Amino acid sequence: MDTPILNKIKSPADLKNFSLEQLYKLAEEIRGLLIETVAETGGHIAPNLGVVELTIALHSIFDCPNDKIIWDVGHQSYIHKILTGRREGFATLRQYSGISGFPKRAESHCDPFDTGHSSTSISAALGMAIARDLKGEKNHVIAVIGDGAMTGGMAFEAMNHAGHVGSNLIVILNDNEMSISENVGALAGYLSRMRTDPKYYKHKEEMELLLKKIPSIGPTVVKAIERIKDSFKYLVVPGMLFEELGFTYLGPINGHDISLIRTVLERARKSHGPVLVHVITRKGKGYKPAEENPDKFHGIGPFDVKTGNTEKKQKITYTEVFGETLCQIAAANEKVLAITAAMPTGTGLTEFRERFSERFYDVGIAEQHAVTLAAGLAVSGYIPVVAIYSTFLQRAYDQVLHDVALQGLHVVFAIDRAGLVGEDGETHQGVFDISYLRHIPGLTVMAPKDEAELRQMLLASIEQYQGPVVVRYPRGNGFGVKIDDLTDIGTIPFGRAELVRKGNDITIAAVGPMVHEAMQAADLLAELGISAEVINARFVKPLDEECLLKSISNTGRLLTVEENVLQGGFGSAVLELLETNGIMVPVKRIGVPDRFISHGAQDILREQCGLTASNIIEEAQIMLPGGRKNLRRKAKIKLMPQL
Amino acid sequence: MDTPILNKIKSPADLKNFSLEQLYKLAEEIRGLLIETVAETGGHIAPNLGVVELTIALHSIFDCPNDKIIWDVGHQSYIHKILTGRREGFATLRQYSGISGFPKRAESHCDPFDTGHSSTSISAALGMAIARDLKGEKNHVIAVIGDGAMTGGMAFEAMNHAGHVGSNLIVILNDNEMSISENVGALAGYLSRMRTDPKYYKHKEEMELLLKKIPSIGPTVVKAIERIKDSFKYLVVPGMLFEELGFTYLGPINGHDISLIRTVLERARKSHGPVLVHVITRKGKGYKPAEENPDKFHGIGPFDVKTGNTEKKQKITYTEVFGETLCQIAAANEKVLAITAAMPTGTGLTEFRERFSERFYDVGIAEQHAVTLAAGLAVSGYIPVVAIYSTFLQRAYDQVLHDVALQGLHVVFAIDRAGLVGEDGETHQGVFDISYLRHIPGLTVMAPKDEAELRQMLLASIEQYQGPVVVRYPRGNGFGVKIDDLTDIGTIPFGRAELVRKGNDITIAAVGPMVHEAMQAADLLAELGISAEVINARFVKPLDEECLLKSISNTGRLLTVEENVLQGGFGSAVLELLETNGIMVPVKRIGVPDRFISHGAQDILREQCGLTASNIIEEAQIMLPGGRKNLRRKAKIKLMPQL
Repeated sequence: MDTPILNKIKSPADLKNFSLEQLYKLAEEIRGLLIETVAETGGHIAPNLGVVELTIALHSIFDCPNDKIIWDVGHQSYIHKILTGRREGFATLRQYSGISGFPKRAESHCDPFDTGHSSTSISAALGMAIARDLKGEKNHVIAVIGDGAMTGGMAFEAMNHAGHVGSNLIVILNDNEMSISENVGALAGYLSRMRTDPKYYKHKEEMELLLKKIPSIGPTVVKAIERIKDSFKYLVVPGMLFEELGFTYLGPINGHDISLIRTVLERARKSHGPVLVHVITRKGKGYKPAEENPDKFHGIGPFDVKTGNTEKKQKITYTEVFGETLCQIAAANEKVLAITAAMPTGTGLTEFRERFSERFYDVGIAEQHAVTLAAGLAVSGYIPVVAIYSTFLQRAYDQVLHDVALQGLHVVFAIDRAGLVGEDGETHQGVFDISYLRHIPGLTVMAPKDEAELRQMLLASIEQYQGPVVVRYPRGNGFGVKIDDLTDIGTIPFGRAELVRKGNDITIAAVGPMVHEAMQAADLLAELGISAEVINARFVKPLDEECLLKSISNTGRLLTVEENVLQGGFGSAVLELLETNGIMVPVKRIGVPDRFISHGAQDILREQCGLTASNIIEEAQIMLPGGRKNLRRKAKIKLMPQL
Repeated sequence: MDTPILNKIKSPADLKNFSLEQLYKLAEEIRGLLIETVAETGGHIAPNLGVVELTIALHSIFDCPNDKIIWDVGHQSYIHKILTGRREGFATLRQYSGISGFPKRAESHCDPFDTGHSSTSISAALGMAIARDLKGEKNHVIAVIGDGAMTGGMAFEAMNHAGHVGSNLIVILNDNEMSISENVGALAGYLSRMRTDPKYYKHKEEMELLLKKIPSIGPTVVKAIERIKDSFKYLVVPGMLFEELGFTYLGPINGHDISLIRTVLERARKSHGPVLVHVITRKGKGYKPAEENPDKFHGIGPFDVKTGNTEKKQKITYTEVFGETLCQIAAANEKVLAITAAMPTGTGLTEFRERFSERFYDVGIAEQHAVTLAAGLAVSGYIPVVAIYSTFLQRAYDQVLHDVALQGLHVVFAIDRAGLVGEDGETHQGVFDISYLRHIPGLTVMAPKDEAELRQMLLASIEQYQGPVVVRYPRGNGFGVKIDDLTDIGTIPFGRAELVRKGNDITIAAVGPMVHEAMQAADLLAELGISAEVINARFVKPLDEECLLKSISNTGRLLTVEENVLQGGFGSAVLELLETNGIMVPVKRIGVPDRFISHGAQDILREQCGLTASNIIEEAQIMLPGGRKNLRRKAKIKLMPQL
């Protein structure tokens, strides 16, 4: 596309010489580039469209990389990337070995800190501010955080500490009245009350001048006057909540008015101590389909620029199956409640929210609270289902252990995006959950082989099993298997695996959708004359000892397959089982290796990690008598296309 | 002791019939009982002495178990226990199979929720309040939370949600101006400003009456008047920060004035929506040594009632060795910083705080922020040492993974209280850290065999190794080994284990202080004619493959010993190593079993878990040719006393 101004920019410093008119022209060009690119690559389009002017204003006032801008969550950093030397490669956004959708220190000196999860920016910024003061340097540190991320507990922990330390630090509250879906919580109400009066900012300036004129005379009078001052301040300053925590509050201001933002940032730059700049933006700004449907356009796949339509999907996703199934269960059992941490759409709970609004709780970006709230509901006789992405449940590891498992409470965790998530990359991979959950006493950990089994597991977890139960399932489409009515799906006896294919030469024990790769591998191994027995483990904890040991005692060798890290995962659980039972057979574990996995399409990443039928075949061949020599026969067979 | 009034109490309902004079007499009796008991058993004496009147007032107004009182953290629940049927067994406090030092649903119907870690109470209480509303019931739910715990992020998450939901809920802010040590953070400053004017509460009542008389006329005027009302409210209501979050604020009031507390609780009981009652108490109240030194008496071992003196220790603790060593390292390297989450004394950092105040950061009870703050400091070229108990680092699992390890930052984690912690019991056992840390890519995980090796590891972690490093060490005394000067202690080559005893029949690979049990076992096995090779693993990650595999190939059998759960721990890492290398030998892992371990003396719990030389001997004997028959020889040897 034609971007004459953008093409002139060699470094963000160039923005300082631009006229206001040129900056607005630049904003227009960037919007065009954003829409055009993300329509191809997919990505977080709405959050970025909301901060075009803010990002331009930031770079026209501050000096990167000397000044540090930390983007909370980081999915709104596209414009920042375009302005800091990544214009050229921008078309590779979120693609394998292309530019990441999140800030990366490895990509640019202008990215001072890697982000991905919510609410970390103020902590990191405060660390940089303290370090700067220790070194006696003078640069600025700026955290840009959304109103949604501000409800995350660690943001409050950091504000509390920053107010205490008093270092120079600028927090920009990017208030778009949403986290991902509509925002919730008392803080949201507070911010909304402030937004109702657009004249606040002007009033405040005038009143502060006035307040300065009130004389302070004599120590006894001073206190009374200060209280009156404070009282007046409350009258005119909408940000008392932040001021009470030791921040100077500036705002609220229109986040699409470059001139105003620049004025206020200039003031913040000259302030002493921590400053909070409250900026009101509109998610999806400048692209009608995104403005009208910011939730859908928060994070989106490729779409048609003209209509905003995404491709029609052929298959149903795990997320959709979860949401639909939970509604069916809840319709029959009024004890069932649903909890989300600001992700009703992402976790498939929109229908539940509509149909059972009084049993639905969106707690904001607050995974810790979500889990302990569930514990409080469970001790009261309800059955809360907490739907959280695998990577975000990491935030509530302690609450799962300490508040739910320790009391043996019947809470069901629906862990979405478990396994390799693809384009969001290393901060979002859901590949640790089996390892961080499996060692928690009394916790049941399951994974379905396909979307039909997800329904079975959810039903059994809620209606049949006791205590805390985790069901983990991947991002993306199911296999398109037949979905039976809830009354016909039958049940899964607690702790029982499923023998899905009988065989004599080798046992392949897989968990989750890797069962299908294992089945495909077994078919092809059969063509090579190798008889593989395939077990769908279903339960990572407790393992089905009987089924596994019986199979292994027959075949004498074992392959395990999981979409989780190899350290402490399902395969390790099987190794522990063998050790406990004093059984020695050759074992090979296939899983995600011990390194962070960057972004790229799910199938590319799975290939990279060896999570494929072809790799299972290869490893099985190596384990059989003859070892690596068996691999010579590989060329003769043809692999079916991956599911 | 003589407790005539206390002895009359059959249920907390009895308090309702007592005169004020009797309630004060009861407070006196309870104080005596608390001091007398905890002087014998050890425990959290200062926090309990601070809430005697508050607890009595609570039970004289509310009806347990119908009304639910949730004690945040829970170590201040002793009086509650005494008043709810646990007077008889109170002498067994914190002892093995005695009464727990924390609320336990299993102990009493008056304990509605198990607590232990900080800042969970409001989430749990909100869950119970929502459940009550769903059921159409009418009981009250009360969370009692300290000003320290209020700085924990999840308390804010819960307040934010509670203000939004609007259910009836009473939060009692027990403000003793301390978390454990002196309180920090902007919130602490805010609370302290409120405390300065004791007449607040009275003023507020009067002013609210006045405010009610201001008429609201016509929609255009209303808004202006409401703003003026708000302004007046700020003038007279010190709790605007809480009011902004949707809470009705009552206080601050003297927390030792039973009559006043009762009046305010009565008002809270009749209020609609969430209420925050701000109560000012004094930690250690009524026992001079504790009032004068509340930090020391927060959690304490047995002490002399008259003097407040604890027993002189013969040996130095790991905590002390850590604190002293860090000071020595920091004296020579100004890049070294120390971070604690409200535990400067508990983690041994008091000397560091005094000597290097500008490099010391107490962030309040905010483990998440502590870790990401460290990440911000590390990207700026400093070497932060984060000292946190194993059980509390669970709160920051995501931050260790996502903010530190993902960027490969050089942050050193000094994990104190790793392993079985003893009397604090199941909420505080530090037995999961190896399992929740070992699968994090790029993280180095170590454990010293004794206090001298702790010094070596700390020095090497800070001065020599790269990236994030964890050093975990236990609660309690070291072995009294020789402590060399920092310049003489030598170094530990990265990733290298230590062969501490050569042998041919069996390899015993141990980690942490379990190496000493292994050595003791090896001595005794030698008397039985069994030659055990003992390896001090030192590194759980990365394992010393060469050392382990060489030993195993020689002895042909392996025992692993660790004070961590068996699921995903050190032993499992060794199993993974063997699988990766295709080695099959008999292995037996010794560690903490897959259940929560309750309170009791550390040596009792270790005995229970088989973490003893005698159990190692037994398991080794079983693994040798002859198997269980070898055990017959056990009776002939005499075990040396445990270290």
